[in-house]
Amino acid sequence: MRAAIVAIGSELLGTERLDTNSLRLTAALDRHGVELRKKAVLGDSEEEIAAEIKSLLTRVDLVLVTGGLGPTADDVTRQGVAAALGRGLSLDPEVLSGIEQRFRAYARRMPEVNRRQAEVIDGAVVLPNGSGTAPGLRLDLRQAGGDAAIFLFPGVPHELEEMIAAQLEPWLAARSGGIARQSVTLKIAGLPESVVEEQIASAYEEFGRESITILAGAGEIKLIATAAGPEAERAVLLAAMEERLAALAGDTVYTRNADDTLEKVVGDLLRQAGATVATAESCTGGLLAQRLTGIAGSSDYFLGGVVTYTHAEKTRLLGVPAELLAEHGAVSEPVARAMAAGACRAFGTAYGAGITGVAGPGGGSAEKPVGTVHIALASADGRMAHRRYRFPGDRERVRWFASQLALEMLRRLLLGNPGSVEALWK
Amino acid sequence: MRAAIVAIGSELLGTERLDTNSLRLTAALDRHGVELRKKAVLGDSEEEIAAEIKSLLTRVDLVLVTGGLGPTADDVTRQGVAAALGRGLSLDPEVLSGIEQRFRAYARRMPEVNRRQAEVIDGAVVLPNGSGTAPGLRLDLRQAGGDAAIFLFPGVPHELEEMIAAQLEPWLAARSGGIARQSVTLKIAGLPESVVEEQIASAYEEFGRESITILAGAGEIKLIATAAGPEAERAVLLAAMEERLAALAGDTVYTRNADDTLEKVVGDLLRQAGATVATAESCTGGLLAQRLTGIAGSSDYFLGGVVTYTHAEKTRLLGVPAELLAEHGAVSEPVARAMAAGACRAFGTAYGAGITGVAGPGGGSAEKPVGTVHIALASADGRMAHRRYRFPGDRERVRWFASQLALEMLRRLLLGNPGSVEALWK
Repeated sequence: MRAAIVAIGSELLGTERLDTNSLRLTAALDRHGVELRKKAVLGDSEEEIAAEIKSLLTRVDLVLVTGGLGPTADDVTRQGVAAALGRGLSLDPEVLSGIEQRFRAYARRMPEVNRRQAEVIDGAVVLPNGSGTAPGLRLDLRQAGGDAAIFLFPGVPHELEEMIAAQLEPWLAARSGGIARQSVTLKIAGLPESVVEEQIASAYEEFGRESITILAGAGEIKLIATAAGPEAERAVLLAAMEERLAALAGDTVYTRNADDTLEKVVGDLLRQAGATVATAESCTGGLLAQRLTGIAGSSDYFLGGVVTYTHAEKTRLLGVPAELLAEHGAVSEPVARAMAAGACRAFGTAYGAGITGVAGPGGGSAEKPVGTVHIALASADGRMAHRRYRFPGDRERVRWFASQLALEMLRRLLLGNPGSVEALWK
Repeated sequence: MRAAIVAIGSELLGTERLDTNSLRLTAALDRHGVELRKKAVLGDSEEEIAAEIKSLLTRVDLVLVTGGLGPTADDVTRQGVAAALGRGLSLDPEVLSGIEQRFRAYARRMPEVNRRQAEVIDGAVVLPNGSGTAPGLRLDLRQAGGDAAIFLFPGVPHELEEMIAAQLEPWLAARSGGIARQSVTLKIAGLPESVVEEQIASAYEEFGRESITILAGAGEIKLIATAAGPEAERAVLLAAMEERLAALAGDTVYTRNADDTLEKVVGDLLRQAGATVATAESCTGGLLAQRLTGIAGSSDYFLGGVVTYTHAEKTRLLGVPAELLAEHGAVSEPVARAMAAGACRAFGTAYGAGITGVAGPGGGSAEKPVGTVHIALASADGRMAHRRYRFPGDRERVRWFASQLALEMLRRLLLGNPGSVEALWK
């Protein structure tokens, strides 16, 4: 099956918004092994919609349309698709009563304009929308080139998401006869892409280059292994790739769950260990604390943090000796270590993290150029780890890298893997 | 002129990436009053590219293509466009020597594959690329329906951006005869869309509903006024709209510069006033400090912050009386006020901000449901402001709203507008 996605809405042709719905649809197509050939974005123009649908039906056999099903005059998706097929539209009394009932449930009368949403293209199957007034439609077409189908979905993201699960996926599963594609994602923090690529090179040979994708983000690498084919075969292949990649990348993999963030994983490790953490930040300005506390339930292990932009406060709040600041400057290994120990002491936590650096664009020097960051971790029992980094990029990237590496250092320590811990503690 | 944008690259049809280049192209089209009718995303398929270009030329007179100009075998944009036009491709010696020279400048020999990038569609104008090896191409077509043009640009964002400025904009300006569209953006924080809409309703009548757009984001509203027409006329209309909107919205407008963030504006006001600020955060977990310090040069006015997740540390680091915490709980007006005053005192700043609330998803109660946030500001001279909010949404949104409203409260105080300051200080 070959598919195309059409997003409709004049606001999607402006300078501010992108069609993001197509990513959700693409994921569903991907899971069922359907090849996406094209995405299109059109304004609310009946003529443009009709022309596009007509042209697409000569090239693909599945068209997924989102948006333009609302009640107002500029919502013309139904009209455009009907025109493309040379079909009529008529009011469906059952759909109408469903919409009226929805309004009654909120103790409101249905505005007259909403009658438009009960108009159904002749021959279409109505797809219920659990969260909104606009139902979806499916058109099953018998064509010269074979069968084809068009789905019309609302553009509201959470309505679309529900309808993908309830309407599209079962339909795709029935058509693909249980044949589908599935992926597994392994995430790695704090290593360059080239290092990861080298580590896993033999998996390319074993499973084929097209099965494994490396996606590099800021301070983070995703390894995505994809398997296609019948379910049993697919599961075996996917498990084999996952195990092979995990073995090759070792404990640099912080999660095998695509939805997990590094701060979530670190938080889970802290909770498992019954340990607590506090932060002392300079150049990251609270970013590390903010990431740690972005996780629901983080009060189980995060007790607090301090952001200090001045020498005096580093001394007063964190107990960093004034002599240390005078001798080495705020951006230095001894100060990072003293900040980490100070955070640990000030909040009475098992671990303390200290970050001090030059985020830029100003403040750099020959000895300490912009991007220089010292990260230290201290434990309540007196152990200490330190790393000095030189991060590339602008202020925002330097700060992000620093928070990312601090989290990764903490993760490695919590993992208790002797190899990496020994390398880290010193 | 009617335009379409085509982004080419199989990675843009996957589940991870979106075509964002089109936003830059759209902005350029918009400035020159060219109507964008359609955006399309295609994989690296010569056949699909050829079919799309052919179909577009029947519907628009300007096609902007990005991507697929690289040196490898899967880069087939040139081939696809040539096929659509029934034209040939031939190696351009001048382009080739330019590419070779580029490699020499980096002391490298040109790989053989890069010869492909010197292939030019017959009759095309070569557009120099200052930052990459792939030159752009422009095809001027004389068609039955009138003149048309196709631009081929590289997909690398910074190369594209340079070429938009150097190649596309001058061409558009020449064609539009100095007629263009221009926008001005006013930004407002912390007010609901409906309130802003009511405030500026009379501007709709005065300038026409299509000239003014309200765009609502999280805790932030953008008012975008757009004027079209010859330069002099446009400038007068734009200035009139800007002044009218600014007058109607009053000092709720925090900037008239689309690129300014709220934390940037607050920082500038602090610097102008020679004032300093410190933060005391609970539910926002450092987000306010992080936003304030995200601005280059923030060390001029930001001295530090504390994140306290426990009663004990609120007392020890910020001097919040233990009785207050016992009597009212951490999420309360008295504690927020004591935190703000404590931050001010602990860091010796002119202003202190205190935030305490229930970000969720857990921790809510009937009396203090999820989303309840107390924000307080204290000044070194003993003044105090407080607001209690109930923010909608998940943990991330509640935290964002809280930081946004804290910044907006601080901005109003710093503005010294008696009306709003009196309403706020109490």
